Amino acid sequence: MRRLFLSVIAIAFGFSMFSMSGSAQAQDAATEQAIKYRKSVMTAVRGNFGAMVGIMKGAGNKADLTTHADALVDLSKIASTVFPEGSDFGETTALPVIWEKPEEFAKSMKAFQDAAANLATVAQGGDMAAFGKAFGATGATCKGCHEDFREKKEKRGKK
Amino acid sequence: MRRLFLSVIAIAFGFSMFSMSGSAQAQDAATEQAIKYRKSVMTAVRGNFGAMVGIMKGAGNKADLTTHADALVDLSKIASTVFPEGSDFGETTALPVIWEKPEEFAKSMKAFQDAAANLATVAQGGDMAAFGKAFGATGATCKGCHEDFREKKEKRGKK
Repeated sequence: MRRLFLSVIAIAFGFSMFSMSGSAQAQDAATEQAIKYRKSVMTAVRGNFGAMVGIMKGAGNKADLTTHADALVDLSKIASTVFPEGSDFGETTALPVIWEKPEEFAKSMKAFQDAAANLATVAQGGDMAAFGKAFGATGATCKGCHEDFREKKEKRGKK
Repeated sequence: MRRLFLSVIAIAFGFSMFSMSGSAQAQDAATEQAIKYRKSVMTAVRGNFGAMVGIMKGAGNKADLTTHADALVDLSKIASTVFPEGSDFGETTALPVIWEKPEEFAKSMKAFQDAAANLATVAQGGDMAAFGKAFGATGATCKGCHEDFREKKEKRGKK
């Protein structure tokens, strides 16, 4: 009887370890996916930023500035959703302070969103000097957020 | 008198060389910018593609699939404008065949645009299986164009 009892305990314990491990694996996969998604959104941001620089320097069609600026407005809103709780470890340069000081981070995101919205409005006007200024202001919000909430380049290992 | 004549010729020749060189430099700068712009547009395409993969795998918000698909529609139209005549040398993997067979290239671009437009329509419906299929079809148009009109990876040097 005692042997049976111990067997049941052992099986139950083994099963619980298995469940925990399965759940932890699922969590890891979700985190990994969240980080990959975040990086893709940032890649799209970078692409549209670079495209606007190109048009300002004479490449492509000036009319497409509005397209890229509008895309940035959408991406700036999505950016608020790509830092879910728990996505602060793994292959990421996002700093824990994002989740430790959520209000400060939200403020930084809001600055990006406001600057992008203004950029899109200015783009409609077609005044290139005004656009350049609004573009600089938008870039400054990226820089600000990266300085406060992203791991510094010199501290990054082989990531 | 002969010396003066020779001097004038020499100055005129020197000036013409200078102009040619200035013009060639301006052309080089424009080409370089056109190629940088092209790469930025492709980076934005890549970012939105990756983001859609992320959402399909459970990251972010499903509702943003339409945002990324709509962005791809815009970018697919812009893609037609990022291969201006003369931007076939320098730091690029674009093959000369793009400009040698413009009709074939335009057909390939049209396939991308049509697939992206269909993807955006399917995204509105919210059927994930249908979206996955339309997504695969869009990716196939990227692959097709890259196979025919982009330098193969193994042939690329340090670019």
